Amino acid sequence: MSETGVTTQLARFVVQSRWGDITQVVRHEGERAILNWLGCALGGCRDETVERLLAALREFAGKPRATLLGRGERLDALTAACVNAVSSNILDFDDTHLRTVIHPTVPVAAALLALAEHRPLSGADFVHAFILGVDAECRIGIAVSPEHYEDGWHISSSCGVFGAAVAAGKALKLDAQQMTWALGIAATQASGLREVLGSMCKSYNMGHAARNGLAAALLAAGNFTSSERALEAPRGFLNVLATRSDAAEITRELGARWELMQNAYKPYPCGVVIHPVLDACLDLRAAHRIDPAQISKVEITIGPLAQQLCGNKTPRDGLEGKLSLYHSAVVALLDADAGVHQYTDARVNDPRVVAFRDKITVSSDGAIGKEQARVRITLTNGQSLEMFVEHARGCLQRPLSDADLEAKFRSVAAAELAPPAIEHLIEQCWSLAELPDAGAIARAGAAPHAQLTMG
Amino acid sequence: MSETGVTTQLARFVVQSRWGDITQVVRHEGERAILNWLGCALGGCRDETVERLLAALREFAGKPRATLLGRGERLDALTAACVNAVSSNILDFDDTHLRTVIHPTVPVAAALLALAEHRPLSGADFVHAFILGVDAECRIGIAVSPEHYEDGWHISSSCGVFGAAVAAGKALKLDAQQMTWALGIAATQASGLREVLGSMCKSYNMGHAARNGLAAALLAAGNFTSSERALEAPRGFLNVLATRSDAAEITRELGARWELMQNAYKPYPCGVVIHPVLDACLDLRAAHRIDPAQISKVEITIGPLAQQLCGNKTPRDGLEGKLSLYHSAVVALLDADAGVHQYTDARVNDPRVVAFRDKITVSSDGAIGKEQARVRITLTNGQSLEMFVEHARGCLQRPLSDADLEAKFRSVAAAELAPPAIEHLIEQCWSLAELPDAGAIARAGAAPHAQLTMG
Repeated sequence: MSETGVTTQLARFVVQSRWGDITQVVRHEGERAILNWLGCALGGCRDETVERLLAALREFAGKPRATLLGRGERLDALTAACVNAVSSNILDFDDTHLRTVIHPTVPVAAALLALAEHRPLSGADFVHAFILGVDAECRIGIAVSPEHYEDGWHISSSCGVFGAAVAAGKALKLDAQQMTWALGIAATQASGLREVLGSMCKSYNMGHAARNGLAAALLAAGNFTSSERALEAPRGFLNVLATRSDAAEITRELGARWELMQNAYKPYPCGVVIHPVLDACLDLRAAHRIDPAQISKVEITIGPLAQQLCGNKTPRDGLEGKLSLYHSAVVALLDADAGVHQYTDARVNDPRVVAFRDKITVSSDGAIGKEQARVRITLTNGQSLEMFVEHARGCLQRPLSDADLEAKFRSVAAAELAPPAIEHLIEQCWSLAELPDAGAIARAGAAPHAQLTMG
Repeated sequence: MSETGVTTQLARFVVQSRWGDITQVVRHEGERAILNWLGCALGGCRDETVERLLAALREFAGKPRATLLGRGERLDALTAACVNAVSSNILDFDDTHLRTVIHPTVPVAAALLALAEHRPLSGADFVHAFILGVDAECRIGIAVSPEHYEDGWHISSSCGVFGAAVAAGKALKLDAQQMTWALGIAATQASGLREVLGSMCKSYNMGHAARNGLAAALLAAGNFTSSERALEAPRGFLNVLATRSDAAEITRELGARWELMQNAYKPYPCGVVIHPVLDACLDLRAAHRIDPAQISKVEITIGPLAQQLCGNKTPRDGLEGKLSLYHSAVVALLDADAGVHQYTDARVNDPRVVAFRDKITVSSDGAIGKEQARVRITLTNGQSLEMFVEHARGCLQRPLSDADLEAKFRSVAAAELAPPAIEHLIEQCWSLAELPDAGAIARAGAAPHAQLTMG
């Protein structure tokens, strides 16, 4: 093995992996990630970013074979992979591999789902390829972390292209030589700058990674050659795109440790440091059946980083609202919810919401960690209710349950799918590994009209 | 101006540039570059690299509107831009911006020509946009040279994407805001590793740049937003993709100095350090009407770098022949030519060619420069003929004439076009700035059968 580079080692591992090697708990985590991803795509698919992307690219797209989630339209698989990846990243509600801050599912699932409508792919093969793709991109990300992201690379895109290539390559049954080339073709397309994160290019970076990773696998399947040491070579990905890297991370405990198990799902579509505050507000309100009109004061104590990042008391739009502790606490207490509807421009500027902010005070305490918060609510009758959150919902110590993920899915998917279609798609995800045709979930997630008849 | 970054400055310059600002000599240089490029595309379009690329991507391509040069097939503009860029880079016969080693025309012309079959574009607008695209990519390349290439980036691709974006953006009449976004969308897609240069991915990198640059311009035309400081920002292209950069190079003498005028055309499809030896062999043979059978000895004296790079006396195939001083000298003397036919696998392994190598000796002299060579031929009658080449043909001090470029074009285009079609295309290039529809050159360069009827 010492003579063989990590590119070849990783390629061989992926090619030799069998479905039987994957334990039930890892398989189920794959289904959870895909359910969460489908919801994000349905929730984001009507965003202006997607509209402008489609307006520009539709003229050049190929035969309509791959579904655009939530939109009742089909394009060729490469373009559909790009569009679905963009849709699913819009809300900043997709998953996070915490060690690398990679959003791992978007490029991998988008590439695979589009491919599944061009080539027959069973549900088990889909989940298997998905798990391998996520593992590859996160391992490559670990090998270049934290320098790669710190240097300015949008790691979800620059490493996501490998995840998409590996997953699509597995689905296409590449041999080891072809899989090595697929990694090489992915490496030479790796791109994505953090500089563009405040613009529509944030999500485009993800679409580009999905599309290019799928293209890498398709080219390699046709014996389009590349380097066989594209990761570790002196002029390869690890050395060129990172000021420091550790190639050994890519193969350490390969097959024994799955990076998918280190993946976290967000329960709320806002800055992650706000999450423990939302937990406390929602739980206190529910436990004590608090009437918002009876609240006289809300005191939030949080870590210094959270106050620094999200201390804006006067957000002006939905995007700023997502980074405001004040707005978040207010809507959680008023609405007993903190979903996408709580972070619209309209909700952020609702006079009742704005007025309620004056009841909120935020202070910081260095002893309080990133996943923690203390909230004390004082009622007009003088009663004081307090809660300390040790681990926010969705973190690895307190992961979202399947029921939590279903609730999140119902909330974000409701914009595009009717309730029966939503329940149908949830069922399909939980039985994805048994489906004869993985493309069925694309059709089930197609569009409202298609779904109303199916329900 | 000091408050405005180079991204915005470059975008404004491109948007404000008028055809009348471009002198006749620069316009004509644009036509020369495009003629040279069309020949390279025709010469490379049947390579196995192109066959495998098309076999993989054709299924996903859109409506057949943009011509694949030399192949009598049409695809959507984005895919066609990729394929034509790949074709035109295959032979390593395209042009070189010597200061950066960028091959500037490939991504820019490929993106523009494909676009010209989707949107009406006059010949003058085509040449104008082409000149601006080449200028932008080379200036950005200068700003990151030599570190960017040394660090491992395939600069023709990583900077070529900007050239394609700027040219296509100019053709699409973007405003300054949109052009700034186009540069940002290009920057976040910039990629291409030198590590893959020994594989099919070498030319794919160029295709990827052409495609992505065109996509950047199309997206920006639809107001798809990006960073407005994608070049100079701390996490922008210049800082992330180079260990040192000088943003001021991008705007220095903008409009007064055109990088296209620093562009060189190769007269021979082999390593550039071999070129002065070929000049000497061909000129001596012609001047003295040498019969190869009368040659007893050939003594070559060349700089140390040339001997180190190209001292292989026993090349095994066409690719190795391109980097062999011995093979090159032999075919020049035997064939009185040094074109693509002299660098086939068959020619390199021809027993007469192989046997003739024993007559050649190569020695190096530190006083002889990169563009220089001394060749002495001794005939069987004892006569000795010697020539010293001060500047190789094709270098900036001794550029190829229009007639040289025509001869090169006739040689490489002959594989796909009949003689009347070749002459027709040459005429169209020399009058490109007067053509009402630039797309005409794509159709004239389409395929043998289409051309035979036109001739």
